[in-house]
Amino acid sequence: MIDGARLLDRLATLARVGATPAGGVNRPAYSDDDLSARSLVREMMRDAGLAVRVDSAGNSIGARSGESNDLPPIVIGSHTDTVIDGGRFDGALGVLAAIEVARAVGDRGIALRHPLEVANFQNEEGGLIGSKIVAGRFATDALTLRAASGYTIGEGIVRLGGDVARLDEARRAPGSIDAYLELHIEQGCVLEDGGADIGIVQGIVGIWYWRVVVEGTAAHSGTTPMSGRRDALLAASRVVDAVNRVVTARPGPHVGTVGRLAVSPNAANVIPGRVELTLELRDIDAAVVTGLFADIERQARAIGSATGTTITLSPTLANEPSLAHERVQRAAERAAASLGLRALYMPSGAGHDAQNMAVLGPAGMVFVPSVGGISHSPAEYTRDADVVNGAEVLLAAVLELDAED
Amino acid sequence: MIDGARLLDRLATLARVGATPAGGVNRPAYSDDDLSARSLVREMMRDAGLAVRVDSAGNSIGARSGESNDLPPIVIGSHTDTVIDGGRFDGALGVLAAIEVARAVGDRGIALRHPLEVANFQNEEGGLIGSKIVAGRFATDALTLRAASGYTIGEGIVRLGGDVARLDEARRAPGSIDAYLELHIEQGCVLEDGGADIGIVQGIVGIWYWRVVVEGTAAHSGTTPMSGRRDALLAASRVVDAVNRVVTARPGPHVGTVGRLAVSPNAANVIPGRVELTLELRDIDAAVVTGLFADIERQARAIGSATGTTITLSPTLANEPSLAHERVQRAAERAAASLGLRALYMPSGAGHDAQNMAVLGPAGMVFVPSVGGISHSPAEYTRDADVVNGAEVLLAAVLELDAED
Repeated sequence: MIDGARLLDRLATLARVGATPAGGVNRPAYSDDDLSARSLVREMMRDAGLAVRVDSAGNSIGARSGESNDLPPIVIGSHTDTVIDGGRFDGALGVLAAIEVARAVGDRGIALRHPLEVANFQNEEGGLIGSKIVAGRFATDALTLRAASGYTIGEGIVRLGGDVARLDEARRAPGSIDAYLELHIEQGCVLEDGGADIGIVQGIVGIWYWRVVVEGTAAHSGTTPMSGRRDALLAASRVVDAVNRVVTARPGPHVGTVGRLAVSPNAANVIPGRVELTLELRDIDAAVVTGLFADIERQARAIGSATGTTITLSPTLANEPSLAHERVQRAAERAAASLGLRALYMPSGAGHDAQNMAVLGPAGMVFVPSVGGISHSPAEYTRDADVVNGAEVLLAAVLELDAED
Repeated sequence: MIDGARLLDRLATLARVGATPAGGVNRPAYSDDDLSARSLVREMMRDAGLAVRVDSAGNSIGARSGESNDLPPIVIGSHTDTVIDGGRFDGALGVLAAIEVARAVGDRGIALRHPLEVANFQNEEGGLIGSKIVAGRFATDALTLRAASGYTIGEGIVRLGGDVARLDEARRAPGSIDAYLELHIEQGCVLEDGGADIGIVQGIVGIWYWRVVVEGTAAHSGTTPMSGRRDALLAASRVVDAVNRVVTARPGPHVGTVGRLAVSPNAANVIPGRVELTLELRDIDAAVVTGLFADIERQARAIGSATGTTITLSPTLANEPSLAHERVQRAAERAAASLGLRALYMPSGAGHDAQNMAVLGPAGMVFVPSVGGISHSPAEYTRDADVVNGAEVLLAAVLELDAED
């Protein structure tokens, strides 16, 4: 039902905006290339017969009427901004497939009861900003934060054609959508390893961050004997290892990461006096994370004693887990089954705009496989057949959702 | 024989130049306070009856004749520059004690056969620059390197009254000195722990550096399962721990330090793809270091295999160990014994100007205790009695050296 060739062609066309020599895409939110890509996508929306607007948050929205405009809309979409030196599929697939769905509905004269909207949210990679504003979860003090492109979020919204003084106009009320469904690449290996075509997302994991500070004593590396040291980097290294041991000791899909670490004074001939690092734990079940953290904290205390250092772990940021709505999961399941595709239920380890849209109504996601699980990289790749499968499931699921009371 | 009260008073006076609120001293080489301190020291040299000059390298040298000016001079001294936020004793003690020795020789009408010179070398903390030039070990491409004060070494030499176009004039020939002896604070705990008054330095440890690069795969921390990771920071952390285990497993005074570590991309939600770190090993015996490094390299290989990362260790810089001359060690030993002081033979874990002067003739060092082993810190402290003991040993050792054939 989908024009797969056109979808693949448009994915290639969009990938040329911000293309990098390595074969990736560099379209950080609010950059010139982000703006160009969003204009191009609005042209594609118009070509699909959608009425296009840019809301005050800078999101692009293409809408078509339903048979009954008293019903709330079914919203489908994703984002077209990328991380620095990202790939061609993350976000772009969900937006372009949604446009193909709208085009298929129009071309084939399919009568939808609900209005249909295609959303291209802004700055997903920098904190789900566009959908956060729509969901009323955005605190305006973040307008001054600088995005990866160098522009602040406030400057970026203006560049996109939004209006920072009227952000509330972009906000939508809970209950104002019939459903939200987002197609996205998996960015992991669960589908590939499981031999499945389609992932039906059960929910988006919660993400908890801690700031870990290790305090030792900076001292001369030549004159301080090994026994007299309070080496903050030695202690921090043991913490990094302990995080890995605790997280891998427990079976399950939860993950734990130390991604950032800074040493002070960070000179080759000075014993490190202080190390700061981040601890990130993710799982769909907050209780699992609570248990993991308790183990890590216990081990950190022991490491502190053994190394003569002081280790403190302070919570900084938490995104609670967000469960996909049953109704959306079932619609996606029926859609995949009707197409003869092998589907798998799975959590999403990454954050997505769907978690904000879940505030407004039933929301869910559909994943297609990422080759090798690689994402946020020029090597990000999803096979043509999987691209088309994803779009077909999106269309069939929209029809399932529309048919329900 | 030494005027201990005057020495202590002058240490306090010098410490006021570049004094910090924390009670330390901030006189990075070539800074205004470094220049002021050096002027003040030249006044003190003149007060001790020395003929003062600044060589083309910017070192200050105060000289007095000997009975036989055909004999090469005995040189004593140290430096008055400090690290950023350093202490009151590192370097300053050796220069001011040397001036007191010269003054005592003059005041007491002691007839020395050899000329006596007091040297205040420039930029010891930034790489032993002044003594390196004197020893002919300075490569002029380093003139453009920026010192801690913000001036390049070339600019700094001009600020000190030197002449970068005539650096060779500061150079001295091997055999052109009778002996070099430097008094310095220990900057460690060996004397304090051993209950000794005086350290007779057997040599200055060799310092070997490696650049260690750990290559993994940067990936999304939310979507990459624990089993599919090639986490460069996890591997690097195990290397840091392995360095500590290898170094402490072998008894001896050798030390091993990872002082610098940089993570890439260093974001809380990205598995680190690359880590660079420094490995520093120090010992007086190169064979010990060779053995330690072989163990560390073997463990790094095993860590690389276990974590799916590639770990390479490349040598970057090596300062060979420098042995103190037997003749100077014996002179210092006899000097301490004649004063009833308890002396201990020990290596120096830090680099000093003496290792460059060793190129020109018999060189050695005498240490006095640092309370708590603290140095390069405002908390650096050496007790009054130890300050005076050190100066007395310096004087007595000069007399011992002068008396020899």
